[in-house]
Amino acid sequence: MGALIEIPARGGTAVHLDRGRSIKVINTHGTQVVDTWAFNRDEPAEFLSMEHLRVAIGGIFPKPGDALVTNRRRPIVTLIEDTSPGIHDTLLAACDAHRYRLLGCPEGHANCTDNLHAALGRIGFAAPETPSPLNLWMNIPVGADGTVDYLPPVARPGDYVVLRAEIDAVIAFSACPQDMVPINGEACIPVEAHFTFI
Amino acid sequence: MGALIEIPARGGTAVHLDRGRSIKVINTHGTQVVDTWAFNRDEPAEFLSMEHLRVAIGGIFPKPGDALVTNRRRPIVTLIEDTSPGIHDTLLAACDAHRYRLLGCPEGHANCTDNLHAALGRIGFAAPETPSPLNLWMNIPVGADGTVDYLPPVARPGDYVVLRAEIDAVIAFSACPQDMVPINGEACIPVEAHFTFI
Repeated sequence: MGALIEIPARGGTAVHLDRGRSIKVINTHGTQVVDTWAFNRDEPAEFLSMEHLRVAIGGIFPKPGDALVTNRRRPIVTLIEDTSPGIHDTLLAACDAHRYRLLGCPEGHANCTDNLHAALGRIGFAAPETPSPLNLWMNIPVGADGTVDYLPPVARPGDYVVLRAEIDAVIAFSACPQDMVPINGEACIPVEAHFTFI
Repeated sequence: MGALIEIPARGGTAVHLDRGRSIKVINTHGTQVVDTWAFNRDEPAEFLSMEHLRVAIGGIFPKPGDALVTNRRRPIVTLIEDTSPGIHDTLLAACDAHRYRLLGCPEGHANCTDNLHAALGRIGFAAPETPSPLNLWMNIPVGADGTVDYLPPVARPGDYVVLRAEIDAVIAFSACPQDMVPINGEACIPVEAHFTFI
């Protein structure tokens, strides 16, 4: 296993992941949502797509063994292992400047959309759009009436997810800076997470 | 009320809808799913976005009175009226050539993604991507375990939805050509739908 690499609190990072290699994403404190994206390294307009993933897996919760697909319906990463209870979100857009403005925050609140594009930029990769992310550990139950709720993660400190690349990919993470609704724990304090290549 | 305009079975159409104008979409036979998109006429990269809509309305089922938002989180259309039981889908991607290939169909099956871009092209509008559509009358229940099912619409013949434009918009419809799973009725026979300006 490689060194632990930090996803800084409220920040993002992006890395290359060659086909066949795996990455372990760790919920270091158990309370943090990690927005996750995957792009085809050779064709940035192909990326992990939640609306295609839900068709492919027949549901809203990816499980170990599931191939997670792109907007061209082919696997880009496989969810190999998940030590957490498996509660992740595939429904909600990444937070952005508009979201925090609507929540009444002053301008300049950190957000996952800006984190994504800044992180990609640091490795010289440009995404043509902002795909809806796989929000690891984000706990958004859907009621029988279709309403959604925003609850803290049910993960434990150190819980992790392993993703294996099925094509040469760029993977990006954002430790979600949401501190207005309790998706990052009741205390609403975003913290760092980690990952490592395995 | 204007003339009834057909959305041909397995086909698509796109129209301009000025701010403040409304359009009535009619499930003529009650069994047909109508994939629906809305774009900012002046900025095609801004469009009705399901992942942002779910945040804005706090759920997966839009209801009369809901402002349906773009990927910049501002209203583009308001759902004014819905005579059907309100079961629509916001979760699943538009069908495309990849989908039918994976279902085992020969090449060339009509699909909503191609219908969208062909319909937009006929009015001289180009969309930079294929947003996930508002699938009117598509009945995709989400189980308590997060699995989704594909069921026939619960609409009645003549049920309709009224959408009012909140900005100058382009609206596109596709009468979904899905005939491999029973989303367009148990008989799996896609049929035409209609719309009219009101």
